[in-house]
Amino acid sequence: MPGMSDALKAALADKSAGVTETLSQLLPEITDPEARLFQAMRYSSLNGGKRLRPFLVMTTAEMFRVSPSSALRVAAAVEMVHCYSLIHDDLPALDNDDLRRGTPTCHKQFDEATAILAGDGLLTRAFDVLASPPTHSDPAVRCLLVQELAKAAGPFGMVGGQMVDILTERKADGAPELDVPAITRMHQMKTGRMIAFSCVAGAILGKAPAQLRQALNSYAHDLGLCFQIVDDLLDVEGSAEELGKSPGKDAASGKVTFVTLLGLDRARDQARILAEQAIHHLKPFDGEADLLRDVANYVLERRS
Amino acid sequence: MPGMSDALKAALADKSAGVTETLSQLLPEITDPEARLFQAMRYSSLNGGKRLRPFLVMTTAEMFRVSPSSALRVAAAVEMVHCYSLIHDDLPALDNDDLRRGTPTCHKQFDEATAILAGDGLLTRAFDVLASPPTHSDPAVRCLLVQELAKAAGPFGMVGGQMVDILTERKADGAPELDVPAITRMHQMKTGRMIAFSCVAGAILGKAPAQLRQALNSYAHDLGLCFQIVDDLLDVEGSAEELGKSPGKDAASGKVTFVTLLGLDRARDQARILAEQAIHHLKPFDGEADLLRDVANYVLERRS
Repeated sequence: MPGMSDALKAALADKSAGVTETLSQLLPEITDPEARLFQAMRYSSLNGGKRLRPFLVMTTAEMFRVSPSSALRVAAAVEMVHCYSLIHDDLPALDNDDLRRGTPTCHKQFDEATAILAGDGLLTRAFDVLASPPTHSDPAVRCLLVQELAKAAGPFGMVGGQMVDILTERKADGAPELDVPAITRMHQMKTGRMIAFSCVAGAILGKAPAQLRQALNSYAHDLGLCFQIVDDLLDVEGSAEELGKSPGKDAASGKVTFVTLLGLDRARDQARILAEQAIHHLKPFDGEADLLRDVANYVLERRS
Repeated sequence: MPGMSDALKAALADKSAGVTETLSQLLPEITDPEARLFQAMRYSSLNGGKRLRPFLVMTTAEMFRVSPSSALRVAAAVEMVHCYSLIHDDLPALDNDDLRRGTPTCHKQFDEATAILAGDGLLTRAFDVLASPPTHSDPAVRCLLVQELAKAAGPFGMVGGQMVDILTERKADGAPELDVPAITRMHQMKTGRMIAFSCVAGAILGKAPAQLRQALNSYAHDLGLCFQIVDDLLDVEGSAEELGKSPGKDAASGKVTFVTLLGLDRARDQARILAEQAIHHLKPFDGEADLLRDVANYVLERRS
């Protein structure tokens, strides 16, 4: 993949396999009457995807010498929440998407009722996993993980951001005018806070000093925003072949994006500045943060 | 209300007011662009209802001298999860109900997208509330509350039970044949485990001995099942005036219930036995459990 270092490519593949295995253990195949629910949860969480968030959890956990078994559970919980959000976002009442990563979305493969429940099930299971003793011996650490994930995913975070996104897309009554501060805030809520949790979780698990936790939080903030601006750029500049989906969807739907607000050149500049800033926030760390630096470069350079 | 002692009536009203106030504080009115999400969460959780689950939390918490401020937060979290489950159950893809307690359901009052997100927001917020320090000074207690609520509400509990309910109602491929053990298991998952959590939460907060926690769990098990059988009986025997809704819906839809499986007389006997058993499980407690005894009698004698 363009922009991805060999070290990053190897680490992503390695960590992704472990996370998938952990997810499979935490979401077992069962033969009880509710088997269909577990089939749908597995369908939507074991089917690949970039596994960016779990990768961030695993990588920052390694920086603080957290045991892999702890980190894998947190990584799996984060991925459960991410997959639940995709299932619900794809529903007919929301984005109404039939395909995700080239395969039928959950409500297409199963049905809407099953998809709604599978999302609910994944979200709830994530908190069960975080709060359970195998995640960390110290209950204060487990509580903090639950709190921070709930804040990142809940009405003050991801769910709130999704609400704003829908209202602005529908140009509903009372929907905010999206200028740069408003669109930044929306993306910060919708995707930024979950990315930030993924970067900070390792520091929480490793009981890292507040200042290092803050450095990772700042890194994640800039990384998340950079990711979104590049998404908007690729929708204008990417080819269907590279993207694996049709570009130009935003423009066709009249969507406000960083590119419509800033223009191509300033958006590209802004993405570069954010990637540099993200890397700059990693200054307190030596070589142990090199993978995170590679991630920032990849997010900037990627073509899909 | 028939079957409700004066003491129970007063306690219900008193505790319900406190829970509503706590919910209102935890789900604030905001003026940010995502205000609509909070409006929908408030609409579906501040609108009354019996508040049976919060009442059970508050009452058992009092038995172990738990501070009301702790108990109120747990009661509010339980009610958030209950209200989220009602919002999602009412959606067109699930039960497709337009009215609840005589007022429009969330997706009718707002829209489907908002209702899905409001449910997601309430569920997530509940875990945030449980895991936060004001709920209890001991993080081990808070973790246990998160774990137990997640197990009660998640795929191994409420969400799983809802899946089975839908599959059997649709007579879907592979749906289980509902006999008495299967319908008991389904209701145990769908509603029983949340009622059990509500009864046990006070004991967790009060660090009660395992044997007292187990007594409350057994009480809740029988109470929940009794509640369901009486529901099925009322659908056959109740009047529209008493119920505030049309009776006979189950029979009209060909639904399998305890009454269709056992017949009226045996179902009535079974409900009485369960209420007696529930009360019997309270033997380790003196007068401090009298309200719980009143609840069991009310659940049996109620006409709506």
